[in-house]
Amino acid sequence: MLKNGFYGAEAHGAYETASIGRLELEEGGVIEDCWLAYATAGTLNEDKSNAILLPTWYSGSHGAYFQTYVGAGHALDPEKYFIISVNQIGNGLSVSPFNTADDSISMSKFPDVRIGDDVVAQERLLREHFGISELFAVVGGSMGAQQTYEWIVRFPDKVKRAAAIAGTAKNTPHDFLFTQILNEAIESDPGFKGGEYGSHTEVADGLRRQSHIWSVMGFSTEYWKGEEWRTLGFETKEAVLSDFLDPLFLSMDPNTLLNNAWKWQRGDVSRHTDGDLAAALGRVTAKTFVMPISEDMFFPVRDCAAEQELIPGSELRVIEDNAGHLGLFGMSANYMPQIDRNLSELFAS
Amino acid sequence: MLKNGFYGAEAHGAYETASIGRLELEEGGVIEDCWLAYATAGTLNEDKSNAILLPTWYSGSHGAYFQTYVGAGHALDPEKYFIISVNQIGNGLSVSPFNTADDSISMSKFPDVRIGDDVVAQERLLREHFGISELFAVVGGSMGAQQTYEWIVRFPDKVKRAAAIAGTAKNTPHDFLFTQILNEAIESDPGFKGGEYGSHTEVADGLRRQSHIWSVMGFSTEYWKGEEWRTLGFETKEAVLSDFLDPLFLSMDPNTLLNNAWKWQRGDVSRHTDGDLAAALGRVTAKTFVMPISEDMFFPVRDCAAEQELIPGSELRVIEDNAGHLGLFGMSANYMPQIDRNLSELFAS
Repeated sequence: MLKNGFYGAEAHGAYETASIGRLELEEGGVIEDCWLAYATAGTLNEDKSNAILLPTWYSGSHGAYFQTYVGAGHALDPEKYFIISVNQIGNGLSVSPFNTADDSISMSKFPDVRIGDDVVAQERLLREHFGISELFAVVGGSMGAQQTYEWIVRFPDKVKRAAAIAGTAKNTPHDFLFTQILNEAIESDPGFKGGEYGSHTEVADGLRRQSHIWSVMGFSTEYWKGEEWRTLGFETKEAVLSDFLDPLFLSMDPNTLLNNAWKWQRGDVSRHTDGDLAAALGRVTAKTFVMPISEDMFFPVRDCAAEQELIPGSELRVIEDNAGHLGLFGMSANYMPQIDRNLSELFAS
Repeated sequence: MLKNGFYGAEAHGAYETASIGRLELEEGGVIEDCWLAYATAGTLNEDKSNAILLPTWYSGSHGAYFQTYVGAGHALDPEKYFIISVNQIGNGLSVSPFNTADDSISMSKFPDVRIGDDVVAQERLLREHFGISELFAVVGGSMGAQQTYEWIVRFPDKVKRAAAIAGTAKNTPHDFLFTQILNEAIESDPGFKGGEYGSHTEVADGLRRQSHIWSVMGFSTEYWKGEEWRTLGFETKEAVLSDFLDPLFLSMDPNTLLNNAWKWQRGDVSRHTDGDLAAALGRVTAKTFVMPISEDMFFPVRDCAAEQELIPGSELRVIEDNAGHLGLFGMSANYMPQIDRNLSELFAS
């Protein structure tokens, strides 16, 4: 186990952990003690019909939702709903390469995990620990959207409503290549040592290069051109990198990012239907809103719209935001109002 | 001097070299013997009024034009025009970090060069070696477009027509950051040794990482999704990288790429007008076609259109191509017909 202070309540907000025991993975690996970090808000009602699940995104955690999306005045209102965000496996808060006590899966030995493994683990956690057998809604951004799609295809009877924000049901080839360059930034650092570094700080150069790739793909050309980062208090574009993206990514654990990236690259609900995406999405019975961000460089609206057309009764709700994919952080003033308006409508349906 | 067989007539087609002597650079450096590699086709007419200049792009040479854009049946027809493509300084064919005999500017000591330095050098070459004082047209793609804009702002009386394909007059912040990650891919390779490598093959890992970044930003999401690379004879997306982009970039000289990237990042015709882009582009008297590629990820149509609106009498001619920026290579069947149609119209004006 390595120490990495970033993965704790101070940076991500309070959370609890629970084990679902042994988890056999789609790719053949096993996590003997699969413990998940999760956070909740609100109260589960008597018939357990008001639970909303928020699966997490790459490099993110429950904290990204609880700091921005959840609260009084938001659609994700703890006065009405029991809101639970479960951190994805390998994200640094749930069981992960650097924090597992099981030496057989530590660091470079951590097994490949798929989106489906996360959803199976979450379903078990909700059922066994909370007695929840049906979700009022699943709402997720980016890799959280991948998990949302997996939920409504794998367990169509267990989800009433779904919102997939800035993500796809089947990853695209371009997105696969994008994630590959994120990975290569880390793996090429001599300090990475094939995943057997002694501290994430030894991979600082690779993490910084990944941060810089995010500066190109995470925001949009319009965001940079309009210097919209000034609303965040920065005075130069260089400061957005050196004072925001770099410190964030340099805090992170490299194996954690790589494990989640492997999963991200292979998200594909059509694995349930022999590669037939239309058949997979045709299974969906949840009322589904597909919510791409207008200026997303790697989950472009048209890719999301093409999937939305395959989902019965679904609606395309484009979120207008020059921030692009990283708009997910809610950094533009007009972002959360759009999210809240759409989710409110979804929840009322 | 290093040996690098890529930079020769076999890969790029026949060319000649000529020295314009001492070139004092905008940033304060000096190239004592500034020799330029150029190729020509057609015959200069008696009053020297039929010369068309083709400035080169990043990682490219005159060969990219002569293999695809120039010839009978194309708008750039050597039967009608005297066509000359001058390789930009530092591109591996003209005087460059690895091929100069002047040790004081070799390798990491090569001075910073600006787009303006290239245009001054080209103007001198054309005037002193060919007696050309006015160009029928300047046509350039990408960094060639940057040089095209520099020509029509710096020497408004010397250019009658201009076509700027897939490039900008003033580089954007997003594009600067994109180029930065290209640079970092090279500079982070331990074999790079601060620019003092013993062979470009020692920087193969860094060059491969740069190649992979091109796979993400050079093409478009639609190109990958539609598997349009199949028209090039590849059978998998991996082969596009391993059999096309990787061998190409692994052939190149790292310092050459970095020198040209520095220049690319800082292209800005408003240097002539104290930062006032409208004033700079307002000077233009050449009939100008602004020709962005529809799916370009880093010179998006809207950025080019915003500049076009500042150029008196200019026209926006969008080239529809899912290949994105690398569509410049003419790999889509519908690319060259659009280029030819627009250039023919420009040349007839």
